[in-house]
Amino acid sequence: MNIAYFNGKFLSKDEIKISPDDRGFIFADGVYEVVRWYKEHFYDMNSHMTRLKRSLSEIRIKWPESENFPSIAKDLIFKNGLENQPAMVYLQVTRGVARRSHNFPIPETAPTIYAYAWGFTPDFKSKQSGIRVMLKEDIRWSRCDIKSVALLPNTLSYQEAHENGMKECIFVRNGLITEGSHSNIFFILDNTLITHPETNHILSGVTRKNVLRLAQEVGIRIREEPLHENRLGFISEAFITNTSAEVMPVIEVGGNPVGDGVPGPITRTISELFDADKKSF
Amino acid sequence: MNIAYFNGKFLSKDEIKISPDDRGFIFADGVYEVVRWYKEHFYDMNSHMTRLKRSLSEIRIKWPESENFPSIAKDLIFKNGLENQPAMVYLQVTRGVARRSHNFPIPETAPTIYAYAWGFTPDFKSKQSGIRVMLKEDIRWSRCDIKSVALLPNTLSYQEAHENGMKECIFVRNGLITEGSHSNIFFILDNTLITHPETNHILSGVTRKNVLRLAQEVGIRIREEPLHENRLGFISEAFITNTSAEVMPVIEVGGNPVGDGVPGPITRTISELFDADKKSF
Repeated sequence: MNIAYFNGKFLSKDEIKISPDDRGFIFADGVYEVVRWYKEHFYDMNSHMTRLKRSLSEIRIKWPESENFPSIAKDLIFKNGLENQPAMVYLQVTRGVARRSHNFPIPETAPTIYAYAWGFTPDFKSKQSGIRVMLKEDIRWSRCDIKSVALLPNTLSYQEAHENGMKECIFVRNGLITEGSHSNIFFILDNTLITHPETNHILSGVTRKNVLRLAQEVGIRIREEPLHENRLGFISEAFITNTSAEVMPVIEVGGNPVGDGVPGPITRTISELFDADKKSF
Repeated sequence: MNIAYFNGKFLSKDEIKISPDDRGFIFADGVYEVVRWYKEHFYDMNSHMTRLKRSLSEIRIKWPESENFPSIAKDLIFKNGLENQPAMVYLQVTRGVARRSHNFPIPETAPTIYAYAWGFTPDFKSKQSGIRVMLKEDIRWSRCDIKSVALLPNTLSYQEAHENGMKECIFVRNGLITEGSHSNIFFILDNTLITHPETNHILSGVTRKNVLRLAQEVGIRIREEPLHENRLGFISEAFITNTSAEVMPVIEVGGNPVGDGVPGPITRTISELFDADKKSF
């Protein structure tokens, strides 16, 4: 039985039922976080909490008890017997239940809080071989910095990659590479690590931030600027980052091999640094 | 008691509970329609059906029984005793319930079908006086032609208008006026009716389409092209259209009065034509 969390209670996941008037269902009026459990601890929960609070604040949802999330997440891990394996916790906060109207509910509603945990097996094979990714026009809105559940464009884009046997869809906006449908992307060009800066066009990934810190610590040259798609032919390495994939080498972008078509040395270095560092949180 | 429709059954609305794994809740992976009941009939149900099928097809949700919607909608009107008053029916179709993954569910899931009806009082007062609307940058995705439930940008934008005492938020993309958060917008400039063409940047409104037909029938000059915001000072009239507001005069845009600051003659003509025509469906 999967024990999940819903509005203050731990329940069997099957017992949790969302109202059809929930603004998460009707308007995608909510935000989410996914945190990773490494046997003994969550990965950089502080950064996830900071981002959660920012997302909530940007769309003006009030969750006064948001500080409880780390404890809710830990309870979910233990109640589901996941403490000794790789696991994830998903949290979604919506504006709550109200009669359908585009403006925020009057009077103010309590938010809907939903969280659940699951164990998973990391994809070691892809980490060894590297993955192929597709390129596609970025059809998303202009507030990708908010981790909202309005993910229809992400799912539609990722589905196309999936059907073509690729493991991620990378977005291009006005010729510039932004990020993946659920990851950030990094390139190595002239021994420099390049990734899109933190603007409204990308999500500030927690793994992204820590990778930049680690790269800086070992003296890798960094440029936080968007790569133009017409520079892809010149890159020597690429990788994506997110909470579940960590540092995942990319060996092909949009049908073209990256460098020698195998995970590159700087990517391997960063992946090893990440593996050592992730235990420190 | 409100009788609603859920996956093949008519139930009390309170009894309908959405799974937290519904892709409508998790990914905004669904589409919707709102149809209007005019005492004896629905307004242009054929056009709503055409648009619904197009939305479903564009995001690749299969609802083989979609032809049943007009009959479901009518049942909702009668079961709720709304047959003799202005009423609306809301329909939402999502990709269904599945373990969270960005790609479409494997195996394919049955869609979630949810519909309900409510009576309402048309806003005659605003129709007489006209409404004020605000202007705001269009932050939405680039597939606004799909009537999806990924409406977070629409609600955030409309909320800002609402807080400023305005009745709609009109979007501007790269200087060009596209449409409202839940309406299309028309302008009169040099005795010509101007509205954004049907592209990926607007929803093809059913009222919009019929207004264009009616205007053409009486010989009003029409240009389906986007108006640049720097031309707003030259317009003599403006109005918005949608299923609930029908033809709603706009007397102020972004703080500036439209023409004489009262509903204009061409708007009134079109509104009267619409009132006569709406009975014909």
